[in-house]
Amino acid sequence: MRDPILLTPGPLSTTLATKTAMLHDWGSWDSGFNRLTADICRRLVALIDGGEEYACVPMQGSGTFAVEAAIGSLLPRDGKLLVLCNGAYGKRMARLAEVMGRAVTILDFGETAPVDPARVAQRLASDLAITHVGVIYCETSTGILNPLREIADVVARAGKRLVIDAMSALGALPLSARETPFDAVIASANKCLEGVPGMGFVLVRRHSLEAAQGNAHSLSLDLYDQWRYLQQTGQWRYTPPTHVVAALSAALDQFDAEGGRPARLARYQANCDMLLEGLQQLDLQPFLPAAIQAPVIVTAHAPTHPAWRFDAFYQRVKAYGVVLYPGKLTELETFRIGCIGAIGQAEIQLALDAMAHALTEMRIRN
Amino acid sequence: MRDPILLTPGPLSTTLATKTAMLHDWGSWDSGFNRLTADICRRLVALIDGGEEYACVPMQGSGTFAVEAAIGSLLPRDGKLLVLCNGAYGKRMARLAEVMGRAVTILDFGETAPVDPARVAQRLASDLAITHVGVIYCETSTGILNPLREIADVVARAGKRLVIDAMSALGALPLSARETPFDAVIASANKCLEGVPGMGFVLVRRHSLEAAQGNAHSLSLDLYDQWRYLQQTGQWRYTPPTHVVAALSAALDQFDAEGGRPARLARYQANCDMLLEGLQQLDLQPFLPAAIQAPVIVTAHAPTHPAWRFDAFYQRVKAYGVVLYPGKLTELETFRIGCIGAIGQAEIQLALDAMAHALTEMRIRN
Repeated sequence: MRDPILLTPGPLSTTLATKTAMLHDWGSWDSGFNRLTADICRRLVALIDGGEEYACVPMQGSGTFAVEAAIGSLLPRDGKLLVLCNGAYGKRMARLAEVMGRAVTILDFGETAPVDPARVAQRLASDLAITHVGVIYCETSTGILNPLREIADVVARAGKRLVIDAMSALGALPLSARETPFDAVIASANKCLEGVPGMGFVLVRRHSLEAAQGNAHSLSLDLYDQWRYLQQTGQWRYTPPTHVVAALSAALDQFDAEGGRPARLARYQANCDMLLEGLQQLDLQPFLPAAIQAPVIVTAHAPTHPAWRFDAFYQRVKAYGVVLYPGKLTELETFRIGCIGAIGQAEIQLALDAMAHALTEMRIRN
Repeated sequence: MRDPILLTPGPLSTTLATKTAMLHDWGSWDSGFNRLTADICRRLVALIDGGEEYACVPMQGSGTFAVEAAIGSLLPRDGKLLVLCNGAYGKRMARLAEVMGRAVTILDFGETAPVDPARVAQRLASDLAITHVGVIYCETSTGILNPLREIADVVARAGKRLVIDAMSALGALPLSARETPFDAVIASANKCLEGVPGMGFVLVRRHSLEAAQGNAHSLSLDLYDQWRYLQQTGQWRYTPPTHVVAALSAALDQFDAEGGRPARLARYQANCDMLLEGLQQLDLQPFLPAAIQAPVIVTAHAPTHPAWRFDAFYQRVKAYGVVLYPGKLTELETFRIGCIGAIGQAEIQLALDAMAHALTEMRIRN
């Protein structure tokens, strides 16, 4: 049988061209692989208009590993992190700072509202110990889009440093160092760039990296050491996920061929619009108002019908070749449908049809 | 052109069957992927005769990430680690414990001698604060084989806990929980199991894991949390490197088909024997005496000839389709040749021929 379509926020459906790039073995010490790494880093810095001011530091592991590396390395041991929180990923950022023993405070916006820049300004004015602010660009637990530029302006005006988790945003949503002041932005290979999972990266102001020596709580997750070693040798400090790196390189070729970030955003936006319209026809209610819905992942309310069981729905939809994603809200029953990956209108239509069949089979809908 | 043969200690040459296993996308939440993870864990526990007493906890990232996760999670905050050190990987284990703020002491055997169990016993008798002992089974910086069973017996008699870095050994060299007492053994997918890089794993006594809650210095590298989440949900705690996991599963199928660990060891031993004999014919002197040479990686002295340049030699050998590995000794000029990976006698002959051509072209040898 053919592979299912993954309507998940990553790992997601990738092209065959991206996957076939993994059909080679690379020596991690070899100059050919070093060129691959350098080329990827150059392209990722260019993606945020980082110029000479920013460096790309790749990191082995999932995106969370890269977030932990960024926070642990950029925050001085006596620094204090304010996390702007409206979902599971904000909570996770606060938690990882706490585990590594840093001072951390949370500004909580619940699970249904975007971050309010005015409240951020108030908090920064009232707690002068804060040195760094962490924010999630698109909170994947709901799909909320946070107002990044406004937040960045408030943080910059207060003289604090901003660390952006742009995991499920980078490559689709706009983010330019020329327009938005930030110290670091973190993402991973397997979201809007449509690579495969196994590595993240941090795009970070060189000036901040240079000051980061000795901050890290972890040898493996020391962003400064990784950067220095890469600068000195062209190599990753410890064994890189060579095949994952090769896949990201191929994915970036396709990203460019598609027309870069604006084209990718347009495709995802069209996917999202079609999905929202289709859900409405199925009487499935989107959780977020359109104004704060990122075209990345849509959260839908579970039907109130007594026959509803997410597991049963999931299995029935999967039988039609479509993989959905469970909800992540604490109080409401929801489920999620991704708009990202190597998918277009045909796949969204297939997913809507599959959901319609499943609801009918479950006698939730005629 | 065809891909070069990687005579490196990993990433190494893998089969096409292993690489083609990466031509699918997996949903990391999906039951099919959970089965893949569970199956790999079961097979890895069986590989060390771990029975019900041991669990397998996979970890994203390179092998070093898994070592750091094991040390950071199994060592209590007030524990003390003794590292038995005879090369770069022993030093790295000590360093990562130091960075995470644990008490650590080193017993140093230089770079040319195996660990001496009698000296370990002495140190354990004289420093009662030591709770855990860390050792490298095969020290890849030279290829030294450490006497694991004797070391494990000494550590067990002293009532201490042993953590084994078996990165470039597991799957080839013997290691059974029935014969060798240990708390944890750490390895990665891309060494003797012949998977691709991007994940490691820890095979750990369940009893020790159960006591490990709250020990870790890092959220991402918390072995206890990873294990609990896997138990509760069947899923990795954060995004797994799905394609790397699928490749390891395929590699384990081939491992079984080859005849398991004894057959793999026999192939590597034959590779190593042929390599040592061939090096002698090229007047290249192995660095280690045969008795402590693991059939994993061979370190050779650089020729004393004035025309020798490792970089030139490396490039010439590579032009014949073979990738070697630089040395890692602090005081002597050496280079390394791996015996592991999806290679046999034909590849070793090709490598020897390539080295012969390179030495002739460099006028080091007639």
